[in-house]
Amino acid sequence: VGQGVVLASDSRTNAGVDQVSTYSKMHRLLATDDATVTLVSAGNLATTQAVVRRVTRDLEQNAETNLARFRHLSDAVEYIGKLNVAERTKHATDGKSGFSPDATFIVGGQIRGEKPEIFLVYPEGNYIRAARRAPYLQIGELKYGKPILDRIISEDLPLHDAIKCALVSLDSTMRSNAAVGPPIELQMIEPDRFGAGVHVLIEEGDDYLDEMRLAWQESLKSAFEALPPLPGTGEPRRQS
Amino acid sequence: VGQGVVLASDSRTNAGVDQVSTYSKMHRLLATDDATVTLVSAGNLATTQAVVRRVTRDLEQNAETNLARFRHLSDAVEYIGKLNVAERTKHATDGKSGFSPDATFIVGGQIRGEKPEIFLVYPEGNYIRAARRAPYLQIGELKYGKPILDRIISEDLPLHDAIKCALVSLDSTMRSNAAVGPPIELQMIEPDRFGAGVHVLIEEGDDYLDEMRLAWQESLKSAFEALPPLPGTGEPRRQS
Repeated sequence: VGQGVVLASDSRTNAGVDQVSTYSKMHRLLATDDATVTLVSAGNLATTQAVVRRVTRDLEQNAETNLARFRHLSDAVEYIGKLNVAERTKHATDGKSGFSPDATFIVGGQIRGEKPEIFLVYPEGNYIRAARRAPYLQIGELKYGKPILDRIISEDLPLHDAIKCALVSLDSTMRSNAAVGPPIELQMIEPDRFGAGVHVLIEEGDDYLDEMRLAWQESLKSAFEALPPLPGTGEPRRQS
Repeated sequence: VGQGVVLASDSRTNAGVDQVSTYSKMHRLLATDDATVTLVSAGNLATTQAVVRRVTRDLEQNAETNLARFRHLSDAVEYIGKLNVAERTKHATDGKSGFSPDATFIVGGQIRGEKPEIFLVYPEGNYIRAARRAPYLQIGELKYGKPILDRIISEDLPLHDAIKCALVSLDSTMRSNAAVGPPIELQMIEPDRFGAGVHVLIEEGDDYLDEMRLAWQESLKSAFEALPPLPGTGEPRRQS
């Protein structure tokens, strides 16, 4: 949104219904006085871990190409895309086994001199950025949480509403798909506020999550009561 | 819901993005003084049409097995399931072409002496019924419209709210997937009210649809404003 960027992720990974684990999918790759770069991931966990490991090692070793040296976020994203392809290629199979090494990322952040931005990196290493008419990006199990984003997210939405919208979107997804689960991580990136920034971790049973769910459910019920009667169904129009 | 059954369907079919057509997916198979049976369909259009044609012909010819003769809705559903399998088997291929003759149905209605019910009929002809803890059924492009149903539909929801909830669910799906489109058809089946019943057709640009969307969007925005501030984000708690 105009006021900045929100990133949100769940923490459940699975390799079949009997192999479910909890791993963070939000990787704060860089948080300096001049740059914030965070990656959220979907898809193959091994590929994701390898990419994050490689990014981290390049940073630690101050390699010729490393995240801290980029002047444009899009260049950093291109670099992450290349690492993604390299890792995927190492483990590619004919696909008949149902195995896929594919991972998809959203990279969000800001490099000083630019505005905060978000990019989606495909398993093939190419990438797109969000735009005014397409202000959000999603990866992984995206359909359940999309309608609320479609109806709410716009350029002029306050950042504090955007972060709650991301939470409601993920919560809707958790309710509908058992392969999506807590903790939920949220990061808020405000323009020119570098450093660690705001990061919120919400566990299952968290007081806020319960409070939010209850408030949201109540509001939705009221919203239905406020909808005009559907003509032809015999529902009387409410007196105002 | 306790007060009856709502059926809802969109009307868009496609065989690839350049072959998009409008066909009703709601078939009111039977509406007599003793029985109401309506079928909504997803999947292969040819299979659906063949099944509906066969049901209609059996009725017209007063065949030994026809829809008007069943004393239990579940028996009628079993019959529809058999027709579905027969038609599917006729056109089955090895599946490598991407072609699938599969069709899935929801059958809703009431036969005098029973309560109104809904059933989901699989391409294999087997079927399930809704239950108190699983009060709705979906077929086709279901993920976008599921969260609102999960949060709202329950046994004690008034029927007039259930029909608006079905409409909002389909509208969310239309916004997110171009292969889902108007007109939307809605049918309301109230206990022991046999005959034609309430059937509503909503075209794109319909005044009610516009009014509903606006009211819904406004309510959702207010709902966000009413959500408690997320701790750690620096949003001040509202004074009450």
